[in-house]
Amino acid sequence: MPQPRNPFNQGLDKNQANYVPLSPLSYIERSAYVYPARTAIVYGERRQTWAQTYERCRRLASALAARGVGTGDSVATMLPNVPAMFEAHFGVPMAGAVLNTLNTRLDPEAIAFMLEHGGAKVLLTDREFSTVVEKALALMKTPRPCVVEVDDDTAPEGPRLGEIAYEDLLAQGNPQFAWSLPGDEWDAIALNYTSGTTGNPKGVVTHHRGAYLNAASNVISWSLPHHAVYLWTLPMFHCNGWCFPWTMALIAGTSVCLRRVDPALIYPLIREHHITHMCGAPIVYSLLINAPAELRQGLAHTVHGLIAGAAPPAAVIEGCEAAGIDITHVYGLTEVYGPAAVCAKQEEWAALPIEERARLNGRQGVPYPLQQAVTVLDPETMEPVPADGETMGEIFFRGNVVMKGYLKNPEATREAFAGGWFHTGDLAVMQPDGYVKIKDRSKDIIISGGENISSLELEDVLHRHPAVMLAAVVAQPDEKWGEVPCAFIELKQNADVTEQDLIAFCRTHLARFKVPKRIVFGPLPKTSTGKIQKFVLRGQVKSVSAIE
Amino acid sequence: MPQPRNPFNQGLDKNQANYVPLSPLSYIERSAYVYPARTAIVYGERRQTWAQTYERCRRLASALAARGVGTGDSVATMLPNVPAMFEAHFGVPMAGAVLNTLNTRLDPEAIAFMLEHGGAKVLLTDREFSTVVEKALALMKTPRPCVVEVDDDTAPEGPRLGEIAYEDLLAQGNPQFAWSLPGDEWDAIALNYTSGTTGNPKGVVTHHRGAYLNAASNVISWSLPHHAVYLWTLPMFHCNGWCFPWTMALIAGTSVCLRRVDPALIYPLIREHHITHMCGAPIVYSLLINAPAELRQGLAHTVHGLIAGAAPPAAVIEGCEAAGIDITHVYGLTEVYGPAAVCAKQEEWAALPIEERARLNGRQGVPYPLQQAVTVLDPETMEPVPADGETMGEIFFRGNVVMKGYLKNPEATREAFAGGWFHTGDLAVMQPDGYVKIKDRSKDIIISGGENISSLELEDVLHRHPAVMLAAVVAQPDEKWGEVPCAFIELKQNADVTEQDLIAFCRTHLARFKVPKRIVFGPLPKTSTGKIQKFVLRGQVKSVSAIE
Repeated sequence: MPQPRNPFNQGLDKNQANYVPLSPLSYIERSAYVYPARTAIVYGERRQTWAQTYERCRRLASALAARGVGTGDSVATMLPNVPAMFEAHFGVPMAGAVLNTLNTRLDPEAIAFMLEHGGAKVLLTDREFSTVVEKALALMKTPRPCVVEVDDDTAPEGPRLGEIAYEDLLAQGNPQFAWSLPGDEWDAIALNYTSGTTGNPKGVVTHHRGAYLNAASNVISWSLPHHAVYLWTLPMFHCNGWCFPWTMALIAGTSVCLRRVDPALIYPLIREHHITHMCGAPIVYSLLINAPAELRQGLAHTVHGLIAGAAPPAAVIEGCEAAGIDITHVYGLTEVYGPAAVCAKQEEWAALPIEERARLNGRQGVPYPLQQAVTVLDPETMEPVPADGETMGEIFFRGNVVMKGYLKNPEATREAFAGGWFHTGDLAVMQPDGYVKIKDRSKDIIISGGENISSLELEDVLHRHPAVMLAAVVAQPDEKWGEVPCAFIELKQNADVTEQDLIAFCRTHLARFKVPKRIVFGPLPKTSTGKIQKFVLRGQVKSVSAIE
Repeated sequence: MPQPRNPFNQGLDKNQANYVPLSPLSYIERSAYVYPARTAIVYGERRQTWAQTYERCRRLASALAARGVGTGDSVATMLPNVPAMFEAHFGVPMAGAVLNTLNTRLDPEAIAFMLEHGGAKVLLTDREFSTVVEKALALMKTPRPCVVEVDDDTAPEGPRLGEIAYEDLLAQGNPQFAWSLPGDEWDAIALNYTSGTTGNPKGVVTHHRGAYLNAASNVISWSLPHHAVYLWTLPMFHCNGWCFPWTMALIAGTSVCLRRVDPALIYPLIREHHITHMCGAPIVYSLLINAPAELRQGLAHTVHGLIAGAAPPAAVIEGCEAAGIDITHVYGLTEVYGPAAVCAKQEEWAALPIEERARLNGRQGVPYPLQQAVTVLDPETMEPVPADGETMGEIFFRGNVVMKGYLKNPEATREAFAGGWFHTGDLAVMQPDGYVKIKDRSKDIIISGGENISSLELEDVLHRHPAVMLAAVVAQPDEKWGEVPCAFIELKQNADVTEQDLIAFCRTHLARFKVPKRIVFGPLPKTSTGKIQKFVLRGQVKSVSAIE
């Protein structure tokens, strides 16, 4: 049937004046133009304005282009949160290439896989990781990337691997390089490998449109003011620092770079630079609020913190409040550019007791402002679960801040988007107020005697015990029940508690079948982003079980 | 030449999970979901939550759809800033139709032209305008729209014209109506006629993508917090209230509606509702700061104001500062959805003397955050003028917040976009710091003895005189010089000044040839948005000249 004539579409097409591809590269161009003399980057004694930063990004782009790097290529980084890492978020896509930020905690095999699979033509690396990088390069079966050494006086000792130093590369570049926006806003901007606890990691490909929108969504969701001063406690290799390099360019903010999450470094920086905003996993905030009192003294202003990676325990929320840190819980995955849901605060929550506030703020929440939808569906029927806080389903996202798909992995891409929604693999309920609440990762559910036990629920209870700093619960194989819960506990300094104490505590808060059958004390293995590595704990449980 | 294979584009296409048309309709859906019980609208004694407002918009959309209104149709409004006007910004596009907000100050001929040209199928109207609307409908040669009466107890007396009352229409609608986002984000959302001082008005067609982005750009540019309380001093018929109905939906703000800009109404509203934000032409702020002292008393909080339509005179900036109103100057046109440039404040300006601050803040500035570019080009060569503050050129915009074009006017559309930029017709210079400064509308330049005289420059000088409330300068035909400047002056209450005084004042601040040859005292004719109607003054000058 022919479409009826629509006068509002006749002769009113896109043209160069009214249509430009959405790209966060536009943000740095504007900040360098409007606020050229404002500080973009602080790192140690170094200060860099927006004009200088933009110039350095253009140099990087032109030097990459001169080496033949362009559309369809990727540039990898093995860097901590140093200025070069920030610059790569602009300089690499300005050359038309895709930025692949490698997780610096990975082993040589994983790094080699990513360099090969992502086809990196150039690798920016830091001396701290040279041992791993050297091994990774030796493992590669495809042509090695050109290695660029990012020098940093404060890096630990280690061999230099680079064929060229980053500063020398920039010196070869053109500060006035006439870079172009992507031909299409759907073009790829970044490649981020998921941790891949089973099989090979998957390469999440994101696009300029989504990066542009999520960078703006960060501002809107968080009421982020112009010129916020942001402390880089969140690794930029993690979902491109949740899009915050681009967000900082949008608001002409100041990025205070940081090699290492250490309260002894962080508190002085907060005071000196009047840090207003930061992001991180709960462990980052735990470290801060449990730091020695002399470090915490004299903090006179409020620091706003986004927290994700796990629901913030009540102790963390309470501790942050006492320390003057105002936290907001966000939820997301690499596939949705980092934060794509927010536990939006309701005014009336402020007056509630801390336990209740922790419960409310610990939820994954509602869509981020420029994300279209997050919801809980029955993964079989793709119908919404009732908003009863009890019926379990899977969390799904839909919107413009969702990846293009997985690189060279059509099957995984198809599965991820089956039914017109992005499948997170996280199990959750929909609460009566419309907020999503995670119950567990599919793989973190413990099935004991046919009953589902949420490891998160157990961890929530354990976190309430005053002696517990961190708790992680995993399934332990059991002849009788199939699986039983096993809890790994990291205690607070000078805390004194026994396995029996904690089990008794759990009995007063949990149904009998959910109580952990075993408690193991000791430091917990964590990723560089502060996430507890449950797969390591599962390995421990299995080997222990095998011995017993 | 075949494109080289790009792995980042292979099998990574758009799908339902990762691509959704950008539309501001998504904003109201989210606010109704996340903040259902928060107040969206205040009008007199009436309070309406976001859930209720969204429900009413869905009722409107479904009732329109039931009357056959859909894609390719338009719905016109002849309404003041009442709740129905706000709702039309969502309900009409939810039905797939285009919203045409008519300027309520227009005469029957202009209204008839717009209803015919825009093809309105439905007209929402208010009793205050029934005389004009009745005449306009009688003048129409095409089928008349269905007229819906928006009742309001506080409207002036007048005949009711509607075939149906707005509330009855809503009662027929479905509060759960399953509306759809536009099929394409490029689809039209609104039609706004420009004032058209010569020939017929032009119908500016805007799209969902631009409305979405500019609504977000308002938030980012102004650091607008969640739940801001916004006073509707700016007519919503003016560029869709600069996209603020959609902005309020994005931040779940409260809209305090207002029939009439009157300080006696405004000050009590500011106090009662703790208004945080407002917009308007300089005249709105002049009225506020020159209101009787008893009205202004007891304002304890800062109100943030966007000001546009003309550069704010120093007296207005100074008066606002004294009154606790923090103003930001923005610039735009209907073709760029209202504000598309902002005179972004630099921190160091705050310490400067008021005259200097007024000069700096009086400029049109730099691109709005999500607008791509605003610049000054030589309209012949389309090359940038030097940033010397002296070389005159024309202001051009480019970006995603630029109209689709003019309805049924391919020639005007082609001209407006010639060379890949939107032509504003405003003459300006580029100042050394990269800020655009308007010198005049092309048609407002006075050419005297071959010299160009900027009427704006003269007005700036006249505004500095303590007795002057408002000044407007136009060209007066002159046998000897071709044209000479004639100044129309509205004095402050109880001010006492003569023509000779003002001419002497101008002589001390202006080159001799620029000094007005004549001063006319009296109230100035203004549009409903507070813009001075220079074409009326030109008419007066011509008739006076003819008599002399």
